Amino acid sequence: MAWEEPRKTGMKYRRLGNSGLHVSVFGLGGWLTFGGHVENELTFSCMKQAYDCGINFFDTAESYAGGQSEVVMGQAIKKYGWNRNDIVISTKLNWGGANGEVLVNNHGLSRKHIIEGLRASLKRLDLEYVDIVYAHRPDRLTPMEETVRAFNHVIEVKGWAMYWGTSEWSADEIAEACGIAKQLGLIPPIAEQPQYNLLHRGKVEGEFQRLYSRFGTGLTTYSPLKFGLLSGKYNDNPDTPPAGSRFAQDDNFINSFRASYYGKTEWQESIEKSIKLKTIADRLNVAQSQLSLAWCLSNPNVSAVITGASRPEQVVENCKALAVLDKLTPEVLAEIDEIVGKITPDPARQD
Amino acid sequence: MAWEEPRKTGMKYRRLGNSGLHVSVFGLGGWLTFGGHVENELTFSCMKQAYDCGINFFDTAESYAGGQSEVVMGQAIKKYGWNRNDIVISTKLNWGGANGEVLVNNHGLSRKHIIEGLRASLKRLDLEYVDIVYAHRPDRLTPMEETVRAFNHVIEVKGWAMYWGTSEWSADEIAEACGIAKQLGLIPPIAEQPQYNLLHRGKVEGEFQRLYSRFGTGLTTYSPLKFGLLSGKYNDNPDTPPAGSRFAQDDNFINSFRASYYGKTEWQESIEKSIKLKTIADRLNVAQSQLSLAWCLSNPNVSAVITGASRPEQVVENCKALAVLDKLTPEVLAEIDEIVGKITPDPARQD
Amino acid sequence: MAWEEPRKTGMKYRRLGNSGLHVSVFGLGGWLTFGGHVENELTFSCMKQAYDCGINFFDTAESYAGGQSEVVMGQAIKKYGWNRNDIVISTKLNWGGANGEVLVNNHGLSRKHIIEGLRASLKRLDLEYVDIVYAHRPDRLTPMEETVRAFNHVIEVKGWAMYWGTSEWSADEIAEACGIAKQLGLIPPIAEQPQYNLLHRGKVEGEFQRLYSRFGTGLTTYSPLKFGLLSGKYNDNPDTPPAGSRFAQDDNFINSFRASYYGKTEWQESIEKSIKLKTIADRLNVAQSQLSLAWCLSNPNVSAVITGASRPEQVVENCKALAVLDKLTPEVLAEIDEIVGKITPDPARQD
Amino acid sequence: MAWEEPRKTGMKYRRLGNSGLHVSVFGLGGWLTFGGHVENELTFSCMKQAYDCGINFFDTAESYAGGQSEVVMGQAIKKYGWNRNDIVISTKLNWGGANGEVLVNNHGLSRKHIIEGLRASLKRLDLEYVDIVYAHRPDRLTPMEETVRAFNHVIEVKGWAMYWGTSEWSADEIAEACGIAKQLGLIPPIAEQPQYNLLHRGKVEGEFQRLYSRFGTGLTTYSPLKFGLLSGKYNDNPDTPPAGSRFAQDDNFINSFRASYYGKTEWQESIEKSIKLKTIADRLNVAQSQLSLAWCLSNPNVSAVITGASRPEQVVENCKALAVLDKLTPEVLAEIDEIVGKITPDPARQD
Repeated sequence: MAWEEPRKTGMKYRRLGNSGLHVSVFGLGGWLTFGGHVENELTFSCMKQAYDCGINFFDTAESYAGGQSEVVMGQAIKKYGWNRNDIVISTKLNWGGANGEVLVNNHGLSRKHIIEGLRASLKRLDLEYVDIVYAHRPDRLTPMEETVRAFNHVIEVKGWAMYWGTSEWSADEIAEACGIAKQLGLIPPIAEQPQYNLLHRGKVEGEFQRLYSRFGTGLTTYSPLKFGLLSGKYNDNPDTPPAGSRFAQDDNFINSFRASYYGKTEWQESIEKSIKLKTIADRLNVAQSQLSLAWCLSNPNVSAVITGASRPEQVVENCKALAVLDKLTPEVLAEIDEIVGKITPDPARQD
Repeated sequence: MAWEEPRKTGMKYRRLGNSGLHVSVFGLGGWLTFGGHVENELTFSCMKQAYDCGINFFDTAESYAGGQSEVVMGQAIKKYGWNRNDIVISTKLNWGGANGEVLVNNHGLSRKHIIEGLRASLKRLDLEYVDIVYAHRPDRLTPMEETVRAFNHVIEVKGWAMYWGTSEWSADEIAEACGIAKQLGLIPPIAEQPQYNLLHRGKVEGEFQRLYSRFGTGLTTYSPLKFGLLSGKYNDNPDTPPAGSRFAQDDNFINSFRASYYGKTEWQESIEKSIKLKTIADRLNVAQSQLSLAWCLSNPNVSAVITGASRPEQVVENCKALAVLDKLTPEVLAEIDEIVGKITPDPARQD
Repeated sequence: MAWEEPRKTGMKYRRLGNSGLHVSVFGLGGWLTFGGHVENELTFSCMKQAYDCGINFFDTAESYAGGQSEVVMGQAIKKYGWNRNDIVISTKLNWGGANGEVLVNNHGLSRKHIIEGLRASLKRLDLEYVDIVYAHRPDRLTPMEETVRAFNHVIEVKGWAMYWGTSEWSADEIAEACGIAKQLGLIPPIAEQPQYNLLHRGKVEGEFQRLYSRFGTGLTTYSPLKFGLLSGKYNDNPDTPPAGSRFAQDDNFINSFRASYYGKTEWQESIEKSIKLKTIADRLNVAQSQLSLAWCLSNPNVSAVITGASRPEQVVENCKALAVLDKLTPEVLAEIDEIVGKITPDPARQD
Repeated sequence: MAWEEPRKTGMKYRRLGNSGLHVSVFGLGGWLTFGGHVENELTFSCMKQAYDCGINFFDTAESYAGGQSEVVMGQAIKKYGWNRNDIVISTKLNWGGANGEVLVNNHGLSRKHIIEGLRASLKRLDLEYVDIVYAHRPDRLTPMEETVRAFNHVIEVKGWAMYWGTSEWSADEIAEACGIAKQLGLIPPIAEQPQYNLLHRGKVEGEFQRLYSRFGTGLTTYSPLKFGLLSGKYNDNPDTPPAGSRFAQDDNFINSFRASYYGKTEWQESIEKSIKLKTIADRLNVAQSQLSLAWCLSNPNVSAVITGASRPEQVVENCKALAVLDKLTPEVLAEIDEIVGKITPDPARQD
């Protein structure tokens, strides 16, 4: 259909799960970069490059860079005057947006925080509404009914969002939210935002297997390169993040994050798999990062893969992964399964 | 009842299906004319003439003339200071209002487009609300529940419309929308806007046969003259649209539209029927166009027939068709059925 | 309870049916007087007198005096600065508020008219909301569901009213509205406003008998003196309305109204009953009008009796009827039944 | 979890019943003090001290000091610029906020008073919303459905509150409200505010026993010291309130309140128990008031204990009771039961 190629960018779009919303198959996310270690001018350039490549989906969160990620994204949207009706802006709530201040109620998925948090996000974004608001992790101590009612409230009554989704919820939690929404006649979540990549496929392909057909759950996945590992950049220097990358920063969060991975057995095993995957990329004559991105898209349940970028060139590079999709023949995918391990659906849970 | 003859114009009014809304049996529509090839001053004259004839129903769409049809209609309403509480303004959503720009999300029946689209329509119309907002074709890739919820939202929460309807939906789609609305306790569509004329009666009289009693669906029909053919103006020159008519314009849309009809077998067959119908019109001593318009109204499930006009005189001519209604005796109607073919309801689907 | 005697006026208050709203047992209505033949200054005096007597319930309608009744009432409320939280303002919708102009959609109980009509009423009243909005007659051609949804909408979404009621609906229509509200989870009507007096008791005591316990329907009754007849003022001159009274006016509506009663058999029979009732009033040493008013209140299903007044003294006189209530012993009530006829509930319809 | 110790104050927080809202285990209430006999500057100091101790929950009511309690609390919130998203403000509706004026409708739990009353409270508080609005006693003459609908309305439609609760309702009334909310799909009450202290435990531990698991009802309890008695300050002078205390004031309300307790048999029996409790406090080496406060918190169904204060030092003293909680071993609690009497749940009502 004509709708599939607007602006002649070559970008592809998918409906987000069973919804009527179209997202570009690559989204641009602001975690650790925008409002953080990336200068604002460079953020603007990355966003402009993304838009020019056909990306219409921009993802942020109240907690990214203490709220600054939202501020900078909002400035870019205004600066470039994009048609608000065409782009998809998402944010996420759970950890509050205040700069590191630990507070009593300014977090979680209570009615109070969902309403107050989204209001604060919109103020930082300087927008009337976002397209998707995600629950940025489950809150197991708040009744699910309170959370579902509150998301329905900000969408249906306040008009502050068009849709809501979840992030890193379990299949049971998503099913509970959908069930409560159906029972109360409220709006269910339309999408989940999980980690998904060649080294982390169990949840999306196993645990979630029945969500797609039962609830029409869409996926906007993050960490397609597993913090850069699947680009191959650690293949030779396992414990040294490249200069300029997110993990080369020196701050408390990054340091502890890095320490929890580098040098550990799982990290070493991952790098061994990455080295094997590189041989496939080389044979297909594509960058390893593009192979990794395209592999995520080869799963039809994935609507969009959220990528990060510190420089506009990275955006262009990432988008080239679209061209790799055709090279992922059943034979190549089987070869990849050999390396990273195949997910066998639990027969007891099949539809 | 006294209500039936306000302003002493002789116009007749019908409730729109099972609703409490009254529409004049002739409506004035802005397709291809208002904001398009008809100058604004002439549009104003047509609308004033229509109002003076007792027409209270004006129909437009976000996509007509790239949104300009709404702009001009809104200006006329302001210009003449008509009582907003008495007139019925409808618009339609699906194809977006931006001038030909192909966009990713600015179309269809997603929650996002219904909300954003209607907001944009109201801005162009410079109105607080329309009376009816139509889904201007089905959107088969958006879940029906999302669409029904969104129409309910703009009516019940936003107050941007009084009622909603469909246009060129199938009977099954209308029934699904009504069923979902009932199950969720939301507002169902009250009307469908199909093509309906002497040469195109199957859908209204066949496929839709059970909708009227089951859901109280009302009809506001368009194309009563089949693009002018049933006025008899092609009887002598089958392939030449009269100067000044909509189909005499020279632009891409019209040219391809014209090419898909003129000279084709179906077109020729239609003109042959038109020539036979003329003999009936002549015998009844009425214009063929008036016979064609009155025939539409002889179907009691039709609440309003939407007509187009480039000149005020056409409006007056069309309204004279009301006087023809009495001449459509059972015998004349049977004679017409002989020419155009009668619709035999499917017994398996009868009530 | 202390609440029952605020402002030490001696006025009594009742909950309106099964609701939490308190109305004074006498209300003041604006039909044919306020905004009509009574000068504004005199209207203000009547309303002030009513308030000073403890009346907190003021009733008007969009159609009274072409909307002027609402205008004048609104001015009085502002002028005297009464506590908005304590008074009960009601208006009624069905016949439109435009000065006699016959319109297509500006009447009835369609969603369009309920929303547009109440908005116009509030503008005339210069209030943010009324306490009760009544459907001022049924509209049998609009689906009940549309009407119930629209009243729920103006109360629950718009905040333009606190409660809704009906006026001169049949028991079946009220039951249908309550049933639809229950099925859809919407707000049901809390009260009906029927005519009720010594000569017109069948509907309230017969047809409505099951509404009170099944739906908690409250009653605000009008015409307690049957257009003055039950004050005894026609006892001696059956066909001559006293100077200064509403029926002494000379305009089209009054003239035709008067002609439909005066001199007719029913009118004569009514006056004969009135003459007999006077003997009871004389024996109890009370004005006949006060006997008639008190009799209405002796029915515990009546929450408020709406009275009219052209002069403040009438308000004071009417309120004195409260003192008559104690004199209506079972014996006196039986004696009255002898004269006017007793209503025997239909056993088949008893609870 | 990190959330449990914000601002390093040592304060503890609990979820309010089954909700997602966190309240400090001690709240500060404004009954009889703020806006009343305590000067505004002192009120500000008390509130600041409470906040500095980690208290985030401030409780007032429309009727406290004729509305002045709300005014002063609102001024303090503005004055100190606390993060609105972190604090919990509650008010209560039932008795109206007008200075002692007895009115007809400005009280109770009708839709009219809940809407008008909360609007007036917010104006006095100068806030957009409160976190919890309580029904400040049941209103047995208003249908429960009207009350539940109205609380849902101010929360869901108006956005004037985040949650609602009840105060001094019976278990049956709370269960009815929860049942109606469930049946209609509306928001149920999340908490009850009862009196609860060593001498008044029957309702919380007996009558309410099934509410906690069935409806997740949370408790914010008041009068933990039984008007000071459980601080031991009457141990030696049973009938003399200490200078400066609330009950040392000389006004009509206090005088009649005092007269209903002092010198009565129950009062004497209570003081005898208080004297025995002091021996436990002495042995544990804590103030008797702190023992009494800590005892309330030893009940896990209690989310917050609302305390009053006329001076900042009292706030500090009260908060020290947290340290006593660990000393309430099963043995100590059993010893206390011996003195004040143990509540034996009704077996017929056990879950």
